[in-house]
Amino acid sequence: MKLSNTFLAFSIFLTAISPMSAISKTTETYTLVIHGGAGTLLKKDMTIQKEKEYKAVLNQALIKGYDVLKNKGTSLDAVEAAIKVMEDSPLFNAGKGAVFTHEETNELDASIMDGKTLKAGAVAGVKTVKNPITAARIVMEKSPHVMMTGKGADEYAKSKGAEIVDPSYFYTEHRYKALKKIQESEKLELDHNSKKKSDLNNKKNSYSYDKKFGTVGAVALDIYGNLAAGTSTGGMTNKRFGRVGDSPIIGAGTYANNDTCAVSATGHGEFFIRSVVSHDISALMEYKGLSVDKASQEVVMKKLVKLGGEGGVIALDRNGNISMTFNSEGMYRGYIKSDGKANVFIYK
Amino acid sequence: MKLSNTFLAFSIFLTAISPMSAISKTTETYTLVIHGGAGTLLKKDMTIQKEKEYKAVLNQALIKGYDVLKNKGTSLDAVEAAIKVMEDSPLFNAGKGAVFTHEETNELDASIMDGKTLKAGAVAGVKTVKNPITAARIVMEKSPHVMMTGKGADEYAKSKGAEIVDPSYFYTEHRYKALKKIQESEKLELDHNSKKKSDLNNKKNSYSYDKKFGTVGAVALDIYGNLAAGTSTGGMTNKRFGRVGDSPIIGAGTYANNDTCAVSATGHGEFFIRSVVSHDISALMEYKGLSVDKASQEVVMKKLVKLGGEGGVIALDRNGNISMTFNSEGMYRGYIKSDGKANVFIYK
Repeated sequence: MKLSNTFLAFSIFLTAISPMSAISKTTETYTLVIHGGAGTLLKKDMTIQKEKEYKAVLNQALIKGYDVLKNKGTSLDAVEAAIKVMEDSPLFNAGKGAVFTHEETNELDASIMDGKTLKAGAVAGVKTVKNPITAARIVMEKSPHVMMTGKGADEYAKSKGAEIVDPSYFYTEHRYKALKKIQESEKLELDHNSKKKSDLNNKKNSYSYDKKFGTVGAVALDIYGNLAAGTSTGGMTNKRFGRVGDSPIIGAGTYANNDTCAVSATGHGEFFIRSVVSHDISALMEYKGLSVDKASQEVVMKKLVKLGGEGGVIALDRNGNISMTFNSEGMYRGYIKSDGKANVFIYK
Repeated sequence: MKLSNTFLAFSIFLTAISPMSAISKTTETYTLVIHGGAGTLLKKDMTIQKEKEYKAVLNQALIKGYDVLKNKGTSLDAVEAAIKVMEDSPLFNAGKGAVFTHEETNELDASIMDGKTLKAGAVAGVKTVKNPITAARIVMEKSPHVMMTGKGADEYAKSKGAEIVDPSYFYTEHRYKALKKIQESEKLELDHNSKKKSDLNNKKNSYSYDKKFGTVGAVALDIYGNLAAGTSTGGMTNKRFGRVGDSPIIGAGTYANNDTCAVSATGHGEFFIRSVVSHDISALMEYKGLSVDKASQEVVMKKLVKLGGEGGVIALDRNGNISMTFNSEGMYRGYIKSDGKANVFIYK
């Protein structure tokens, strides 16, 4: 009896001191999937030049994340790297290209989740962090918290070394013009219609204005078999009252769990929160045994459509199976696998 | 062909104009379950007087909600009414009794969800709304949004008629003393230990300080067969950086769906966000066919325990089955059914 206990203890000891076995348990298969927002992306509204620009940034994001994964980096590193590329581009509604709030400020939200540990981090309403996805990761890794909001989130990110910029960094002419256009049309409506009819909170208005402009996100699988997901957004043009959408909400905009999948969502955030979209996809895999694509289809094409929620998701399981599912007219998206071939798409 | 079309149209017309059938589809069974927080509630730390006071408020909340349900009110009305009683009491960490932040302010979070429509509303970091649960309901019912944060949420609630108070309303001596005690012990730690050891962000510290003080919540089933859930909190004593816990997060602290259940959670919020606790219980019912109690047990006693997350939930299905499950040493809780008998509990 004593001997067997000693033997057991020794075995446990051996397991504990043999990190090599863990390290060598890698695979050459890795995958990165990204999105740059979903919505009304009609081909007729696009110029060839614009399409080229979008695709170039998507490609760049894929390559950046691929390099991380290829060099034995983690899925978290790849997700962060890919999202940073899109945040740094003025084309996407995240980071540099964030839309303007009603008060002519830019308020950014982001979240990230580690499928291995189920750790997560999120920031909402930050105004000075250059890369909100990095701030979300800092919250996850350096604090005991998951979510920080407003000025406090900016301060915390700064205190832990995140790159801080003057709020004017987020000014882009096209986003500012978009804000002014919306505000003018609202004013016109107020002038011409009854107050009731032109309620500024009207559901249809508040989304349709920026349908085209999307949140960015990434999901990745690394050589260690770990999944990660991240999402970053500037929210809605002309947003008021500290409105927060699904992007910084774990379970709604972002979710990752090695047992199931990694998901990043984009679309009409309110519906994605109410549907707990990302976690619902995971739950369908965990409890009903659906594939990552079947689960995504079920949630995006059935449940969300029934509720009236427009948008899409990218999802990835730990075998590298991908889903890029959207019920809108288009979604900026792409994927890259171990072969290094970047694939990017915009329309259906 | 034409005749049958006319007949079909007529049938649809008949269905549309017969609200009576919908109204008469009521039942005399209704249920309300409430909680006033979970944590280390050791009997030896309680006086008989204190216990009496807590139980009196829990009873009052149950009766208030019961009156709503008995008088054919909705589950949303009952949830709001019951939570308001606890918010208005200085005993619970919500509304009047909210804990203090690091900056000596009170920042309140709340959310509410309608199981019939899957509509939801949430506020985070409000400072002047007397009843945050009412503000959450206003966001749900009067805006196209789900979540509003900070000053904007206060402004919106005010603009829609929520009762506004001076921030000093939230001052209570015992909460202020609790803050000072924590800040002094942190200072002492800083003086005596190495900086590394006394990291203010230390996970264990930040929760254990206010383990005893809980979030409040309610779930209800009305005579129309509709479920609703709500949660309200003052967060963590000495919280910084705009930290937000699970209470205002739909899917984590609050979830309601007529197809499954209504859930309100309380505990170490970060773990509840990472586990998407409330939606996970719903998903286990929807996809695995578990009962409301089996599902709650699975999430709270297994999944959360595995992750290290302390706390509990109240959950209710549309047949009036109840679960009050917690992995902590106690949870202020109670329920009332159609018979009008209020049942309240504190310990295991």
